[in-house]
Amino acid sequence: MSQSAVGEHHVVIVGGGFGGLNAAKALGKAGCRVTLLDKRNFQLFQPLLYQVATGSLTTGDIAIPQRVVLRKYPKVQCLTSTAYDVDPVARKLVHEFGELRYDTLIVATGVKHHYFGHDEWREFAPGMKTVEHAIEIRRKIFGAFELAEVEQDPEVRKALMTFVVAGGGPTGVELAGALGELAHKTMVKDFRAIDPREARVLLVEGTAEILPAFAPKLRVAAKRHLEELGVTVLTGTRVEHVDAGQVRTRSDAGVQTIPTRTVLWAAGVTASMFGRILVEKAGGALDRTGRVQVEADCSLVGHPEIFVIGDLARLTDAAGVEVPGLAPAAIQQGQFVAKVLRHRLTGKAAPKPFRYFDMGTMAVIGMNKAVGDLKFMKVSGIIGWFMWAFVHIMALIDGAQRVRVFVLWSWKYFTRKIGDRLVTGAPTKTRELRAARPAAPSASV
Amino acid sequence: MSQSAVGEHHVVIVGGGFGGLNAAKALGKAGCRVTLLDKRNFQLFQPLLYQVATGSLTTGDIAIPQRVVLRKYPKVQCLTSTAYDVDPVARKLVHEFGELRYDTLIVATGVKHHYFGHDEWREFAPGMKTVEHAIEIRRKIFGAFELAEVEQDPEVRKALMTFVVAGGGPTGVELAGALGELAHKTMVKDFRAIDPREARVLLVEGTAEILPAFAPKLRVAAKRHLEELGVTVLTGTRVEHVDAGQVRTRSDAGVQTIPTRTVLWAAGVTASMFGRILVEKAGGALDRTGRVQVEADCSLVGHPEIFVIGDLARLTDAAGVEVPGLAPAAIQQGQFVAKVLRHRLTGKAAPKPFRYFDMGTMAVIGMNKAVGDLKFMKVSGIIGWFMWAFVHIMALIDGAQRVRVFVLWSWKYFTRKIGDRLVTGAPTKTRELRAARPAAPSASV
Repeated sequence: MSQSAVGEHHVVIVGGGFGGLNAAKALGKAGCRVTLLDKRNFQLFQPLLYQVATGSLTTGDIAIPQRVVLRKYPKVQCLTSTAYDVDPVARKLVHEFGELRYDTLIVATGVKHHYFGHDEWREFAPGMKTVEHAIEIRRKIFGAFELAEVEQDPEVRKALMTFVVAGGGPTGVELAGALGELAHKTMVKDFRAIDPREARVLLVEGTAEILPAFAPKLRVAAKRHLEELGVTVLTGTRVEHVDAGQVRTRSDAGVQTIPTRTVLWAAGVTASMFGRILVEKAGGALDRTGRVQVEADCSLVGHPEIFVIGDLARLTDAAGVEVPGLAPAAIQQGQFVAKVLRHRLTGKAAPKPFRYFDMGTMAVIGMNKAVGDLKFMKVSGIIGWFMWAFVHIMALIDGAQRVRVFVLWSWKYFTRKIGDRLVTGAPTKTRELRAARPAAPSASV
Repeated sequence: MSQSAVGEHHVVIVGGGFGGLNAAKALGKAGCRVTLLDKRNFQLFQPLLYQVATGSLTTGDIAIPQRVVLRKYPKVQCLTSTAYDVDPVARKLVHEFGELRYDTLIVATGVKHHYFGHDEWREFAPGMKTVEHAIEIRRKIFGAFELAEVEQDPEVRKALMTFVVAGGGPTGVELAGALGELAHKTMVKDFRAIDPREARVLLVEGTAEILPAFAPKLRVAAKRHLEELGVTVLTGTRVEHVDAGQVRTRSDAGVQTIPTRTVLWAAGVTASMFGRILVEKAGGALDRTGRVQVEADCSLVGHPEIFVIGDLARLTDAAGVEVPGLAPAAIQQGQFVAKVLRHRLTGKAAPKPFRYFDMGTMAVIGMNKAVGDLKFMKVSGIIGWFMWAFVHIMALIDGAQRVRVFVLWSWKYFTRKIGDRLVTGAPTKTRELRAARPAAPSASV
């Protein structure tokens, strides 16, 4: 009787990232009928996206189709489609290709990057949330070095070899570290007209410190590791303007204009639009960054049949901790709501409220330095790097990817070779990049 | 004295594929001053491009920057730029960012695909020469299955699940085989609304036989392997028309219209434009497909200081064999012209005229079937596959790539998992793909 209740109940999950995919796996295992909807046909391992952008990993290493992960659960269906609307009374989800009736709805549509009201910067300063972003950033970085090698004008060459990373959180720190390592170690012997070590990498952070979520001692270690890789850390410095040729910053020391062709955005995120639609139709509250306020069991206020999990959810857990927007929190919430639902459908008492298990935070800086703020210890340096590598490889979902990434990293570690530095993209885009050069006639090389 | 002649001589190489890159390596080793010019910053292992298109390999597995390969030769410089013109009297090459004086010029700009005068088909039937082509084909293939899973109209669904490959040479055969395997083996358990085994894969060839360069026995084996993977082989059938919704073919049996959303072009190649410019300026002759006729030592008629190698060269070798447009021939010619030049600069007698060493031809069909027309034997079936895998892995230039691909293929072989099936691309492109659907309102899923 109760097993049949489980099998008839239709769960619709919107968003197949860490949260949605883990909920789908747990519900699939329990024999539920699940429809998982995502705009993209793959789950992306976002914490490693900066490694695609800087040429160490290739796209297939960090992404896998949800339907491959969920293949073994015959009652779980994956649809590549975009959710547009929800009717909480009729319990219907409206998406690009039709409608879906649900008994339970799980919303896990995450966050996107955000330019603090300056959407016009988007064109010049790509963010780091999608595979396309990472490939665009890769094209910008390696394209800038290629152009510098043929450039005659020393001013233009200097601008081409100046890289500005906006945002001193883990993504910005990891990206700046990887760039510093590329310029100061990996590519040292690759050019003839330029010395890649002359590249300037600037990490710009508006607040007083990089890595605000880390312990003070680790922030100091992170800054030292970055500086060893030639990265200049500018804290207390806000970005005021970005265009194709420069960045303008403001700090207590005044306004500075930095000529550059490559600005990378790791500064802010905002909740995805579907959270706003959900709250409009079903009630509830959004916080300042658009996240949906949820109950202790991750359900929407007044709607026990609707859950919101992952980066999109705003929750202070049973221990009084504000659940952070990190992959482990999303994974734990996905598994948690599957358990809540299983208990409901089988008539068991509800599980205890959600409690985030914090395994700690790590950031990697260059090839073999990392800082880790772990539960029971603080690590930095090469031990930090090994722990970071281990944690990330183990968290990669698919076995084949795990083996690939492990082989690649080991190889990279011992040879300093590089994975995928291709400058790809539509020719028009390459032309745009070239168009940023002055129109003056080129001299003989 | 002669070593200094070697070091002062400036060799400019246009094109960094198999031919140009191998010439640069051999000349770098000999201590020559070399400038290698390529539009792209990487060499592409084109024979495996169809595996990126069908999701088994990812881009970084089959491409490597020329400057990484040539890193250890300090007198070799790589420039990412496009060659536009040549002045054979002043010995100057004009490129996008300036001019280069050369003592010796090596032209290895290859071929591109060709629509037999129907350039309007390009939009609907992508070829298979660049990384971008492979990613576009991947998006078309996996995007079609994703759309079929949400499609209600059985006619549209059938068109989405119909794949037409034009061209029965090795690329077309390998692509059709990989598609057949995807639909009939790899993806069988991945969908709920459709059965991927209902996909139709049509291989269309204008002449009477597929794989015309292979022995008759192997052609029969190849056709059998394809049919076992559900591929329909249509020989003696020419493509007459291609648009967003259909392909029209003509054979002795008459005209046939095939509704499809995915047409893949593996039918024809034509020489790159730079060959035409070279002959206009420096003299010499082009053949019907635009290839440059060269002398027995691969030099241009009347210009011993200009060599043309690889797919762009038309040469009947010392043994009377027409050198085919294959990677091993380009590699051998690159090494050969480096030797000719070394002999010249050190005052040695010229080497014997170029002679192509034919190691045989192979085509892989699906995961573990291949046909091989090797020098001393003909193989097919699983032994063919293992030989094909070995030959390809050994020919991959970079050590890291070799390890990656080996691990990936072994893993794939034992688990039938898949490497990189991401449907990526600008949102506008995804929208175009969707626009091919009829405008009728969608029903409930």
